[in-house]
Amino acid sequence: GFAKIDHHRALRRGVPEVIFCQGKTPEQVARITRRMLEKGVNIMGTRADLKVYEEVRKIAPDAEYYKDARIFAVKREKIVQNKGTIAVVSAGTSDIPVAEEAAVTAELLGNKVERLYDVGVAGIHRLFMNMEVLKRAQVIIVVAGMEGALASVVAGLVDKPVIAVPTSVGYGANFSGLSALLTMLNSCAGGLTVVNIDNGFGAGFAAHQINRLGGQADGCALS
Amino acid sequence: GFAKIDHHRALRRGVPEVIFCQGKTPEQVARITRRMLEKGVNIMGTRADLKVYEEVRKIAPDAEYYKDARIFAVKREKIVQNKGTIAVVSAGTSDIPVAEEAAVTAELLGNKVERLYDVGVAGIHRLFMNMEVLKRAQVIIVVAGMEGALASVVAGLVDKPVIAVPTSVGYGANFSGLSALLTMLNSCAGGLTVVNIDNGFGAGFAAHQINRLGGQADGCALS
Amino acid sequence: GFAKIDHHRALRRGVPEVIFCQGKTPEQVARITRRMLEKGVNIMGTRADLKVYEEVRKIAPDAEYYKDARIFAVKREKIVQNKGTIAVVSAGTSDIPVAEEAAVTAELLGNKVERLYDVGVAGIHRLFMNMEVLKRAQVIIVVAGMEGALASVVAGLVDKPVIAVPTSVGYGANFSGLSALLTMLNSCAGGLTVVNIDNGFGAGFAAHQINRLGGQADGCALS
Amino acid sequence: GFAKIDHHRALRRGVPEVIFCQGKTPEQVARITRRMLEKGVNIMGTRADLKVYEEVRKIAPDAEYYKDARIFAVKREKIVQNKGTIAVVSAGTSDIPVAEEAAVTAELLGNKVERLYDVGVAGIHRLFMNMEVLKRAQVIIVVAGMEGALASVVAGLVDKPVIAVPTSVGYGANFSGLSALLTMLNSCAGGLTVVNIDNGFGAGFAAHQINRLGGQADGCALS
Amino acid sequence: GFAKIDHHRALRRGVPEVIFCQGKTPEQVARITRRMLEKGVNIMGTRADLKVYEEVRKIAPDAEYYKDARIFAVKREKIVQNKGTIAVVSAGTSDIPVAEEAAVTAELLGNKVERLYDVGVAGIHRLFMNMEVLKRAQVIIVVAGMEGALASVVAGLVDKPVIAVPTSVGYGANFSGLSALLTMLNSCAGGLTVVNIDNGFGAGFAAHQINRLGGQADGCALS
Amino acid sequence: GFAKIDHHRALRRGVPEVIFCQGKTPEQVARITRRMLEKGVNIMGTRADLKVYEEVRKIAPDAEYYKDARIFAVKREKIVQNKGTIAVVSAGTSDIPVAEEAAVTAELLGNKVERLYDVGVAGIHRLFMNMEVLKRAQVIIVVAGMEGALASVVAGLVDKPVIAVPTSVGYGANFSGLSALLTMLNSCAGGLTVVNIDNGFGAGFAAHQINRLGGQADGCALS
Amino acid sequence: GFAKIDHHRALRRGVPEVIFCQGKTPEQVARITRRMLEKGVNIMGTRADLKVYEEVRKIAPDAEYYKDARIFAVKREKIVQNKGTIAVVSAGTSDIPVAEEAAVTAELLGNKVERLYDVGVAGIHRLFMNMEVLKRAQVIIVVAGMEGALASVVAGLVDKPVIAVPTSVGYGANFSGLSALLTMLNSCAGGLTVVNIDNGFGAGFAAHQINRLGGQADGCALS
Amino acid sequence: GFAKIDHHRALRRGVPEVIFCQGKTPEQVARITRRMLEKGVNIMGTRADLKVYEEVRKIAPDAEYYKDARIFAVKREKIVQNKGTIAVVSAGTSDIPVAEEAAVTAELLGNKVERLYDVGVAGIHRLFMNMEVLKRAQVIIVVAGMEGALASVVAGLVDKPVIAVPTSVGYGANFSGLSALLTMLNSCAGGLTVVNIDNGFGAGFAAHQINRLGGQADGCALS
Ligand SMILES: Nc1ncnc2c1ncn2[C@@H]1O[C@H](COP(=O)(O)O)[C@@H](O)[C@H]1O
Ligand SMILES: Nc1ncnc2c1ncn2[C@@H]1O[C@H](COP(=O)(O)O)[C@@H](O)[C@H]1O
Ligand SMILES: Nc1ncnc2c1ncn2[C@@H]1O[C@H](COP(=O)(O)O)[C@@H](O)[C@H]1O
Ligand SMILES: Nc1ncnc2c1ncn2[C@@H]1O[C@H](COP(=O)(O)O)[C@@H](O)[C@H]1O
Ligand SMILES: [Mg+2]
Ligand SMILES: [Mg+2]
Ligand SMILES: [Mg+2]
Ligand SMILES: [Mg+2]
Ligand SMILES: [Mg+2]
Ligand SMILES: [Mg+2]
Ligand SMILES: [Mg+2]
Ligand SMILES: [Mg+2]
Repeated sequence: GFAKIDHHRALRRGVPEVIFCQGKTPEQVARITRRMLEKGVNIMGTRADLKVYEEVRKIAPDAEYYKDARIFAVKREKIVQNKGTIAVVSAGTSDIPVAEEAAVTAELLGNKVERLYDVGVAGIHRLFMNMEVLKRAQVIIVVAGMEGALASVVAGLVDKPVIAVPTSVGYGANFSGLSALLTMLNSCAGGLTVVNIDNGFGAGFAAHQINRLGGQADGCALS
Repeated sequence: GFAKIDHHRALRRGVPEVIFCQGKTPEQVARITRRMLEKGVNIMGTRADLKVYEEVRKIAPDAEYYKDARIFAVKREKIVQNKGTIAVVSAGTSDIPVAEEAAVTAELLGNKVERLYDVGVAGIHRLFMNMEVLKRAQVIIVVAGMEGALASVVAGLVDKPVIAVPTSVGYGANFSGLSALLTMLNSCAGGLTVVNIDNGFGAGFAAHQINRLGGQADGCALS
Repeated sequence: GFAKIDHHRALRRGVPEVIFCQGKTPEQVARITRRMLEKGVNIMGTRADLKVYEEVRKIAPDAEYYKDARIFAVKREKIVQNKGTIAVVSAGTSDIPVAEEAAVTAELLGNKVERLYDVGVAGIHRLFMNMEVLKRAQVIIVVAGMEGALASVVAGLVDKPVIAVPTSVGYGANFSGLSALLTMLNSCAGGLTVVNIDNGFGAGFAAHQINRLGGQADGCALS
Repeated sequence: GFAKIDHHRALRRGVPEVIFCQGKTPEQVARITRRMLEKGVNIMGTRADLKVYEEVRKIAPDAEYYKDARIFAVKREKIVQNKGTIAVVSAGTSDIPVAEEAAVTAELLGNKVERLYDVGVAGIHRLFMNMEVLKRAQVIIVVAGMEGALASVVAGLVDKPVIAVPTSVGYGANFSGLSALLTMLNSCAGGLTVVNIDNGFGAGFAAHQINRLGGQADGCALS
Repeated sequence: GFAKIDHHRALRRGVPEVIFCQGKTPEQVARITRRMLEKGVNIMGTRADLKVYEEVRKIAPDAEYYKDARIFAVKREKIVQNKGTIAVVSAGTSDIPVAEEAAVTAELLGNKVERLYDVGVAGIHRLFMNMEVLKRAQVIIVVAGMEGALASVVAGLVDKPVIAVPTSVGYGANFSGLSALLTMLNSCAGGLTVVNIDNGFGAGFAAHQINRLGGQADGCALS
Repeated sequence: GFAKIDHHRALRRGVPEVIFCQGKTPEQVARITRRMLEKGVNIMGTRADLKVYEEVRKIAPDAEYYKDARIFAVKREKIVQNKGTIAVVSAGTSDIPVAEEAAVTAELLGNKVERLYDVGVAGIHRLFMNMEVLKRAQVIIVVAGMEGALASVVAGLVDKPVIAVPTSVGYGANFSGLSALLTMLNSCAGGLTVVNIDNGFGAGFAAHQINRLGGQADGCALS
Repeated sequence: GFAKIDHHRALRRGVPEVIFCQGKTPEQVARITRRMLEKGVNIMGTRADLKVYEEVRKIAPDAEYYKDARIFAVKREKIVQNKGTIAVVSAGTSDIPVAEEAAVTAELLGNKVERLYDVGVAGIHRLFMNMEVLKRAQVIIVVAGMEGALASVVAGLVDKPVIAVPTSVGYGANFSGLSALLTMLNSCAGGLTVVNIDNGFGAGFAAHQINRLGGQADGCALS
Repeated sequence: GFAKIDHHRALRRGVPEVIFCQGKTPEQVARITRRMLEKGVNIMGTRADLKVYEEVRKIAPDAEYYKDARIFAVKREKIVQNKGTIAVVSAGTSDIPVAEEAAVTAELLGNKVERLYDVGVAGIHRLFMNMEVLKRAQVIIVVAGMEGALASVVAGLVDKPVIAVPTSVGYGANFSGLSALLTMLNSCAGGLTVVNIDNGFGAGFAAHQINRLGGQADGCALS
């Protein structure tokens, strides 16, 4: 026996059910997917490798796979779109998988996303050349490993909610992301909040909940 | 010589300048206050004990002191009020100073705040009796020490941005707040973001930035 | 040369000898098993993969294998049954192997076990729908990874001995189970005691020793 | 405002309400005590120094003070007595305050307690001379700092529930109790469960819940 | 008996002998000072509070005290001056004591020092307004607590040796400077090296050794 | 999409662009290399295994591979040579890859390098027999794992900038280099600065920036 | 180039040169071995797997392999034998490789060794049945993982030098041997000293140096 | 009630009973002392401040106080003297209290002690000038804080048992002695064993047990 499925969907309005695939066999994921699909909901699976996706496609041939984000999605319901934009800013090439997990999560939850990658602190001028992306956004997600200083810099430049995602990218005294995590938690730049190391999903989800407060694309009020 | 003062106030519209008083002498704080007051701005000082307040009152007789929050404030400008409400939920009696730091910060930044204290996980029924406070809020701050499980429970009940503040309350394997911090970072309840241990100010500030997305009390648009 | 076998069996009345198979070769486990069987006792092996089981079956064709629990057992003696029931509650799908290690251990030691799986804090309503399982039990084992808050919640609802098992399920600031371990140690809910990360066996064993105090199924007194 | 009081007392049958005094002013503790006393219940306060006790005595002149245990108690209701005995075993002289916190807690909850102090591992023969105390007990609490090895030794000698309390006694690589905590969590002696560093109260409370399973002194059944 | 004195002074050419006063009594410091003065050398004492200074002044009435830096100095020999300048950049008001320890150390070793304080990452524009200080310097010392990101930002802007000094300023997940230390060690900005938490002296000393490579003010060659 | 390339090369005068290959596929590295080569600059890739090198050679047949250093280089521009020498001292055989990363980095940046390997603290006489290498150098890099004491010893013998590189070589309480890192940070020998565990590149880069202060081989001044 | 060989052999009188093979290729080990053999000394290699041994045998056909200890040895000189005996006591089956590393090291250095394995704390009576082994020994090595309490128990029973070796055996809050290491360092049993986690070699070497003080088998005095 | 006294003195032949005074009141120490004196044994108290000593002198007017070592002693029996010498080597002035704890402990247990203080690694030449002290000793105790490298250096120079005592002297990344502890545990110099941070007593005690193996001053054999 395994994962019971949450039937309390009243509040969700198209928000996909989420399966955390890490530590589950492709068969387990497929079985959970099948049971969920019977209710006609949207589904997304995070930390899904290709094998998981292939097993899921046997059950749902319309499943899509976001390779960089390691996410699969099955879309069966329309999802309400939020008005504001979420910016996803990332520091280095190796942080991209986590940044994509955040970006694709936010998109699947009904948000416009603008990506600004490879703007690490060592090359801070690249950030300044793209300030308009930060200005356009309602919420900003900053993804950075190693010393994670990018989050402080961004939050120091803008006056908006910034969600920081430390990544495990780095080596040595990085201690698998601890370094970036502590940097972000200790930031003296106001308005910064933090999620778990490598938790792109959590950042995308929280950014969506914040972005929703700014209203929906079609103007429908938030109850 | 010490703390230079930020004159870039275009974006701030009444938002107070903030002085972090911990590790500063009452005289240092008073001197910073005087220089800031010359510009006619609002001021708040966090981690301020009574001695700091008394020194500040010599410079600004209209300074107010929020004892539980360890905050002083000098109000010289009108501050724009946000429409939505911020709920501050806290677990135990000893968490109140941090909860008050969050609540008073949010109020001074122009937000309505509802407090729901002493609803720790061990007495979870008390949380359920007050669900309407959670429902009314746009953003929720959860303040908890020891095991910090309250944040997960709250985030599991609502579909809104939840900011978790671990406190250093506890002893032994609490390791001065590490326990609550890790609990909150590892929460599997979606939409939870975390600030530093005991950082009530940071949570109040971030909650304000989020709440502002829901519009201002007087209906003025957000540029 | 390796593991000497404990011949002091006076107190044990059917309680199986236990082999911790992790870090031993299938051949080592089989050899220990053979020597134990010469004394006609019950045997159980924990952390046993299929290869271990297959090697053991050559020595004891009646050996049984509990796949999810990673336990094999050879039953040669009758084991005294305790009167009370042990509930094993677990948070997520990935915690099931540890939960099963606890549950099967308790069963092999002569206890009735009721399982209540996938009732993690994020979906707390599922726990409330099954309160009668908690009420029926004499002792409760709670198995949870990530933030481990479930243990606090359960211990806050009941007035019985609760044994918490943190699991290494999670990632990032989970630090291989440290997060859940600290959460559980710092719980402010009374009556909670804790075993090592992933130590389902220890929890099952301790729960058995506690359950035994409530008397045996056949009414025989405890000397 | 502070600590709300739990009025759900149906299940408690004389079990005292508990106040954790650490981090509260004597005045706060006295005020909580007064409100509780209005309901006619028993009260105990842990981590209470003499100043707290003196303030409480103004409200409740019949309050008693257990100096070594740092506990005060106000007894207004009769408490049901359990049949079995709880043994409290401690390693060194400096561990006595924590051992007394456990012992007095258990007594106030209605249990007979036998104390066996200063039987640290370095002088293991002293433990062996007092084996009958261990034999008489239903549940054993072991309190030890420094390396905490005593818990393993005791659990290896008996076939009963053993609750280990690591203390912060020691210095250097003791890391304020971490050493003893890890020792106890890693014990290979079956039936050992662990509470937080210095948490004598938690151990006494859990031991009471276990001891209760063996029946009440007056023979009344447990619903 | 205590600290023997190093008589090997051939290489030193005016470089003061250094006494680390922390953990020594004023009397011990004064006695060490007296013995050193007999050799006619320069002396500096770090981590020296006023009491230490007063005791030293009894022995050396010409001793000077740098209050912010917590350093006393007795100058008896001429010290060779280096040609280049050392910049000391610091993030917040509370980092000033460590910054001054670095700056005064460098000055006493024969270097010109330019100070640029309170240019923390949250107010990054203040750093940009003072870029010419960075440009003028041969070596840069960056002193920062909390998240310590300033060091990365500075090293990303210049192409010179940057020595980072993490400070213990902060609270919570700062873990007494660990956060800033890890940030700095993990910086991806080239040319950054790090000294111990709060080690202003070490940074000043290393910066001096580096600055010396650029030649002496009077043009004398370096053997 | 991935790594943008820095076109700001005014300051660099032949300094190679650097690619950190760890965590990138050979194809990603090759693509970055191709784009960089279009600008006619020098390139070096660190943490590059043979597969990376082979892929790069398809794009740049003149690429060279430094096997022990795990570095590849493509030289298209002349690089200015510094006058002084950098000594790279290492403790044990297993530290050589990190020492070579430092040495080859320094060479590719235009420095003469002298290697002194296998002079660990346990065999300290071997260091003394080679003192002239230390004397000839302007800057010294010390690479050591396990207890890392070599850095202190070297810095105690010389009066020059010493950059310490802790390595992850060792086991047990070495905690993947933490031991050596802490040793080096706590050294009481003046003039020692530290880089991240295993960060040979960072040490070579910083040593180059320092060595440059001593002037260029062809006598050209440093602007 | 790699490991230089120590030619200072005056003091050694047959003591083998030691090669730490972990992290070296079989070819590197063989090359070091060949160079050493030219001087006619004894050699031992620790952490040597079968591949290393096979490569060494090509150079030294008389090389012997101690499989459990993961040690190879080439004996070319006579080694002086110490008079006293070293006891190696170990807790569990999985600790045997480390215990054997200690035992074989001591034997190769010229000591009689008595092994007493599988006498863990959970089965403490087995230790008592073999007290004569402890009594016969001059020095005792105790090897234990998990909670490591055995070292304290042994040191509490005897009045002799006891060297404790924590092993990385265990899981969860064992943190790869940290638990046993801290236990042993905090032991309140006098005369206990500790080596690194899994460092059987270091324990065997130190025990040899101690045992030598008791005199040599042939009666030759120790200069 | 408190500390029971060990009457098993058969093996001890003059070895004093030891009281660990830290965390005990002067009255508690005095009471333990009185009970011990009734048996006519020698007594020593470690971590004893002046107040403890004064209280003890009321009971034993012949008690002596070793101020630097924080030890008091009452000598009533003759103690057997060992033949060999123990050297106590220490790094810095602030390490002296721990070094003295080791030295005085060893003296009170019947050993000749030679002290060699302030020979830290930064001034390594001072160690070399005193090599004859190391040569004369049978056992060497090395006491060092900060980076603790002295222990490795000493053990690399001699071929004798070396006991390393890390001290908590230092600051920042010293983490209260952790740095020195890890350095010493990871030393690659053979024959080094380690005791707890600041545990001078333990080192003195272990050194005595080792030194005893070399025979007694009066030639009496060791049974
Ligand atoms: N990448 C992720 N990181 C953290 N939490 C996740 C992630 N993906 C999904 N989740 C959470 O895990 C829950 C599903 O867990 P499960 O029942 O094990 O599939 C979802 O409700 C999400 O809240
Ligand atoms: N309680 C607090 N915790 C964390 N950060 C704070 C707190 N109070 C103020 N701050 C931040 O500290 C800055 C002021 O620091 P300072 O210049 O040292 O007074 C403010 O701009 C805030 O961003
Ligand atoms: N081995 C290394 N360790 C640390 N940082 C490095 C290393 N190699 C290159 N870098 C830095 O990483 C940057 C390139 O990172 P990337 O854009 O991911 O290739 C370079 O500018 C260097 O500053
Ligand atoms: N400074 C010390 N550090 C560690 N252990 C000590 C110290 N002094 C005494 N001891 C040990 O503590 C025991 C006495 O503890 P106690 O019964 O609490 O006085 C002695 O038998 C010694 O083994
Ligand atoms: Mg901001
Ligand atoms: Mg939620
Ligand atoms: Mg409960
Ligand atoms: Mg037992
Ligand atoms: Mg730079
Ligand atoms: Mg030097
Ligand atoms: Mg002993
Ligand atoms: Mg040696």
